[in-house]
Amino acid sequence: MIAASYERNHTIRIGECEPVTPGPDDVQIRVAFGGICGTDLHIYHGKMDWRTGESRVIGHEISGTVAAIGANVHNLKVGDPVTVMPLLPCGNCPACAAGHSHICHNLKFLGIDASGGFQSLWTVPAYTILPLPKSLSLQHAALIEPIAVACHDIRLGRVKAGEFVVVLGGGPIGALIAFVARQAGARVLVSEINPHRLAALKKLGIDAVNPTTVDLPAHVDALTGGAGADAVFEVTGHKSGIEMATKLPRTRGRIIAVGIFSEPPPVDLFRFFWRELQLIGARVYEREDFAKAIELAASGALPLESLISDVVPLSGLRGALDRMGGSGDVMKILVNCAAEAM
Amino acid sequence: MIAASYERNHTIRIGECEPVTPGPDDVQIRVAFGGICGTDLHIYHGKMDWRTGESRVIGHEISGTVAAIGANVHNLKVGDPVTVMPLLPCGNCPACAAGHSHICHNLKFLGIDASGGFQSLWTVPAYTILPLPKSLSLQHAALIEPIAVACHDIRLGRVKAGEFVVVLGGGPIGALIAFVARQAGARVLVSEINPHRLAALKKLGIDAVNPTTVDLPAHVDALTGGAGADAVFEVTGHKSGIEMATKLPRTRGRIIAVGIFSEPPPVDLFRFFWRELQLIGARVYEREDFAKAIELAASGALPLESLISDVVPLSGLRGALDRMGGSGDVMKILVNCAAEAM
Repeated sequence: MIAASYERNHTIRIGECEPVTPGPDDVQIRVAFGGICGTDLHIYHGKMDWRTGESRVIGHEISGTVAAIGANVHNLKVGDPVTVMPLLPCGNCPACAAGHSHICHNLKFLGIDASGGFQSLWTVPAYTILPLPKSLSLQHAALIEPIAVACHDIRLGRVKAGEFVVVLGGGPIGALIAFVARQAGARVLVSEINPHRLAALKKLGIDAVNPTTVDLPAHVDALTGGAGADAVFEVTGHKSGIEMATKLPRTRGRIIAVGIFSEPPPVDLFRFFWRELQLIGARVYEREDFAKAIELAASGALPLESLISDVVPLSGLRGALDRMGGSGDVMKILVNCAAEAM
Repeated sequence: MIAASYERNHTIRIGECEPVTPGPDDVQIRVAFGGICGTDLHIYHGKMDWRTGESRVIGHEISGTVAAIGANVHNLKVGDPVTVMPLLPCGNCPACAAGHSHICHNLKFLGIDASGGFQSLWTVPAYTILPLPKSLSLQHAALIEPIAVACHDIRLGRVKAGEFVVVLGGGPIGALIAFVARQAGARVLVSEINPHRLAALKKLGIDAVNPTTVDLPAHVDALTGGAGADAVFEVTGHKSGIEMATKLPRTRGRIIAVGIFSEPPPVDLFRFFWRELQLIGARVYEREDFAKAIELAASGALPLESLISDVVPLSGLRGALDRMGGSGDVMKILVNCAAEAM
């Protein structure tokens, strides 16, 4: 079989390797498609070498079919379409004990801390597997993981029908948050500075503005009768994003912190006090978010086809990573991981 | 009658003036005691001149008895003991429309934007009045307003019995939050650097530590089996306070923003993301918080007597303000506002 490994210094090695024989509690997946995530780009840029070690098969947004099952696995059979929730919690820490194993203190992540899915045969613990309806295409199924992120963010952000939601940052996660919020019955506005992404969002029927040319707080005030937004999703991870986020919510409105901040930005805590705002951190997903993501993807309610900018073979992974790091003219690139796609 | 007015440049004028005749929807209070708040000190230091104008009777933590009532006021009679919720909402803004009139976009505050209670006869709108049980002393009743702040903070912070709560800042509001949290069944730890206040808190049976001599995150970890605090109240308004606050909560723990930040401090948003923390802004109080505060004060469950550092006549207000601005060896100073106390 073939696999794509990150081997430090911008090196992606594509090559033959031996598949891992599944243990009694494992499942081996014949991987179909894998989405390339911003985290993969981060790894490729050498920012996570302390977690990936000398060589790591990356990729964690995966669809495929069951290739083999361990002796203790009874709810799956060979050929079943599946996706993977790529979290390995320890089961013993205070977070796991409190029922928050998705943010376990010792969490390991498949494709970062352990072997990922950019390989034609991938062996994972059976508990990470979620079966898929046969009606869902395996290309769309490769988007389940980022859709689950969006479902988690919307759920923790307590978005309700009729609410006004602003999403700061219109990349793949921001776009999916906008889709899921709209599906939940919210009115949605996305703020994005990249013209390619602005155009893509508008094509998808999402109301999107450029905050460098539109006075966003005044625009939101005008759209909400001076009240402000019910919920604001900060998906930029940039200090200008959190600065804007605090200006937009109504009294008791929520800001959901989705973006990753490499250092602590200034935050207008007076505004939190003054308007009794809430900031809600949201990270990855729980099993119910995957279930919701599968349901939404299978329903056809999300314009997933339009999110897929390209599908490349495993040998095209490095080129795709370089393209993602460029001008931002792509949303989601999928990797075809089938051995014969080389 | 006599009144204490702030007249800019560290000037407090105590003098005779005409009482305001109550209109049909007003109540005139024979003021008994008024607590001096940090906000009064802030006014005295000239930080709120744009709100107080040329001359303003200050004071908003008031107890007294009804002196006269307007024609439309039917639920009160002369002599009834009362306190005042000193908020004047506009009734027309989006916050008022959403049921959050306590943080009205155009909120006016008695004792800042309109005449306050450091006077022997104070006329206020009847809707600001809360009747008191006769069993409650009028000295203790002057603490109802700050107790209501603490009740609001605990309620918005969703503190439950059995939880571990940390309060950063052990002045009067921090101490009251600790008392109310303890009354709600929480375990409480207060962090305070002032030795006078540390000693006062310990005398009141509150577990209190100095974060400059104790490793507070390690201490909280040790007290919670490595989990972290369920809720952390930031009452310092200082960047070191919010920096500490983000280090202490458990996964999905809450930080309640009570302190007032004059400029945006750096906030570790990565920690919010990583542990799915929540930040909850909390400002003043709602009527149900006053009701809870009255119930708690009347029950005798809070050690209010020990919080009262001194009781001075109106003529002692300026000296008391200077003392509060000093070494921090006082908790709450009450002003006796009865005319004969001059």
